[in-house]
Amino acid sequence: MSIEEKSLQLHEQWQGKLEIQAKSKVNSREDLSLAYTPGVAAPCRKIHANKEDVYKYTMKGNTVAVISDGSAVLGLGNIGPEAAMPVMEGKAVLFKEFAGVNAIPLCLDTQDVDELVKTITYLAPTFGGINIEDISAPRCFEIERRLKETLDIPVFHDDQHGTAIVVLAGILNALKLTEKSISSVKVVINGCGSAGIAIGKLLVLAGVKNLIMVDKDGVVHKDEPWLNWAQKDMATLTNPEGLRGSLSDALNHADVFIGVSAPGIVSQDMIRSMNADSIVFAMANPTPEIMPELAKAAGARVIGTGRSDYPNQVNNVLVFPGIFKGILEGRGKQITEEMKLAAANAIADMIPHDELHEENILPEPFAKGVADAVAAAVKRCI
Amino acid sequence: MSIEEKSLQLHEQWQGKLEIQAKSKVNSREDLSLAYTPGVAAPCRKIHANKEDVYKYTMKGNTVAVISDGSAVLGLGNIGPEAAMPVMEGKAVLFKEFAGVNAIPLCLDTQDVDELVKTITYLAPTFGGINIEDISAPRCFEIERRLKETLDIPVFHDDQHGTAIVVLAGILNALKLTEKSISSVKVVINGCGSAGIAIGKLLVLAGVKNLIMVDKDGVVHKDEPWLNWAQKDMATLTNPEGLRGSLSDALNHADVFIGVSAPGIVSQDMIRSMNADSIVFAMANPTPEIMPELAKAAGARVIGTGRSDYPNQVNNVLVFPGIFKGILEGRGKQITEEMKLAAANAIADMIPHDELHEENILPEPFAKGVADAVAAAVKRCI
Repeated sequence: MSIEEKSLQLHEQWQGKLEIQAKSKVNSREDLSLAYTPGVAAPCRKIHANKEDVYKYTMKGNTVAVISDGSAVLGLGNIGPEAAMPVMEGKAVLFKEFAGVNAIPLCLDTQDVDELVKTITYLAPTFGGINIEDISAPRCFEIERRLKETLDIPVFHDDQHGTAIVVLAGILNALKLTEKSISSVKVVINGCGSAGIAIGKLLVLAGVKNLIMVDKDGVVHKDEPWLNWAQKDMATLTNPEGLRGSLSDALNHADVFIGVSAPGIVSQDMIRSMNADSIVFAMANPTPEIMPELAKAAGARVIGTGRSDYPNQVNNVLVFPGIFKGILEGRGKQITEEMKLAAANAIADMIPHDELHEENILPEPFAKGVADAVAAAVKRCI
Repeated sequence: MSIEEKSLQLHEQWQGKLEIQAKSKVNSREDLSLAYTPGVAAPCRKIHANKEDVYKYTMKGNTVAVISDGSAVLGLGNIGPEAAMPVMEGKAVLFKEFAGVNAIPLCLDTQDVDELVKTITYLAPTFGGINIEDISAPRCFEIERRLKETLDIPVFHDDQHGTAIVVLAGILNALKLTEKSISSVKVVINGCGSAGIAIGKLLVLAGVKNLIMVDKDGVVHKDEPWLNWAQKDMATLTNPEGLRGSLSDALNHADVFIGVSAPGIVSQDMIRSMNADSIVFAMANPTPEIMPELAKAAGARVIGTGRSDYPNQVNNVLVFPGIFKGILEGRGKQITEEMKLAAANAIADMIPHDELHEENILPEPFAKGVADAVAAAVKRCI
């Protein structure tokens, strides 16, 4: 039976991967009067007098909303809110299992940016943080920016920042191995949606000077007519030599390739045109931009993918549980750029120097202590 | 230590009365690929092809949203969404403990009717039902009506209908005891907010012909200038003799008093002016409209309150868990008037005829089988 067939069967058995548990049991009249009326009036009054007490008396402080509009789910596209539910439930499972954080999936029946921003704003009192998920670009950028301006709780778009942080962690370790400096390498990112743009921004922040972004129409250059507003922004941060052309032109003499794009679009010749000791993160799922065997044969030294059946799986489950655990425990109001860099370094540092090699640049998803290390790194930045 | 002090201490220990549990454990790479990517794509595709499959593969079918705007919380008034959280969490605890239904508290940061309707509509894909709670009258009537028109999942305003159903159950048994017929008794409801109006409507539906509604300005009469639109509607259903005046005027020769109003506003003289074998439900909390001892001394025969320390507690925990259990299991689209009557009869029938007496007209909140009996009654109406 295939993974998909088995998963379908299990989903039918589970009828939902989450359930609500009551921490306060109700087995007597007294229990009822303590957890509910009349006793419950006491914490209500305290919170009414001092809104911050909501963290003291309710689940808010350890609860995250996992919110999607179903517009860009996995590689499946705009499948709508109902069909997005299994993914959001799965995400909530990972929050709990990896970091002990309560997460509640909420799939919203609107794809209008203004309505999404308002709805999420109205939902905020219940939650200690908002994880937005699988919302298509460039809408996701505006939604995240506006929520961050409005809300006093942290907002995180995992498709962007979770991916960017784990990619940076992998790149940091790959650069140690290849003894190249982050400020001197030429990096090419193929795929200029939410993940690609976030990776690009974080790499620039981490010190990359020569970054080329490529989308399906070619290299991102400020004079290209096809750029959307988010890509235009990126054009000002990247491509210092004013290169125009195709992915193949961009990869010539590059040190690092990062693919968040489509299956099989990188050829062995393109890999051969890269500098020696090249680093190739081919993360299209389930089929990478180039299969690891082919990349290796063409000379790539360090190869990462999104797959669990190859070494160096670039998986943001290494990131989001710890990020939220840290920000919630430290009661941070925003997830800052400094926190993202600290989280990437914490993940990279999970691989001791003497265990670092071409097939071991990132911890396994199940490595013990990753979420705690990320949480601690985030808390130090609050 | 008082109940309130003890409750406050417990709330601080709990830090939230609910937590999320993962039914699908994630202890291996394979677990991860089944509960999350890539396996999770299979149920997503199925639901995308047939939206109804969301009930088959996700938690929707056994999950209710408990939604409030914090505008009318317990007797505390408009204390806002954060301060409403302990109540909504408590409600969610009762859904789980009494009926095994997952309930998620959502306290919304808007009190605008249009915005509330839109927000709840956007939230619907995740939930099998919507329980709205502690939203002030008359806004709650419009919100509920518009949601029922729009949504294909059941919507229930517990403050209205939960209260109305349990009151009707109690009245049915009290009438059996006093050997009076529902079509011939004169009933007075004091308090013309959400609960009072819902009780009035359900009693009329159950056969009450002579109903007088009273609010703080006096008897509800179609020519009174102070009526809001919801009270105006009630004026057309009630007060067949065109009575005008005060609560005291209304109670003269009444058989049943139902108070959802304010402490101590019913005097012993008013009780004395009622017919013999009078039924008095004085449900203001924590202090009733008249204390049971005083009502009894003045001649009332059957007395109910909202309190757990007197007999005949009129508590809607007897209602909402079973209502939602039944409607979810039967996949009903709406909670109908027929279901409400059936639920009230099911609750009344929990007291066997030979156990019915003045101090035993309603089951205890912890009586076994109430939620199941209510659920079965609701399912038979689908």
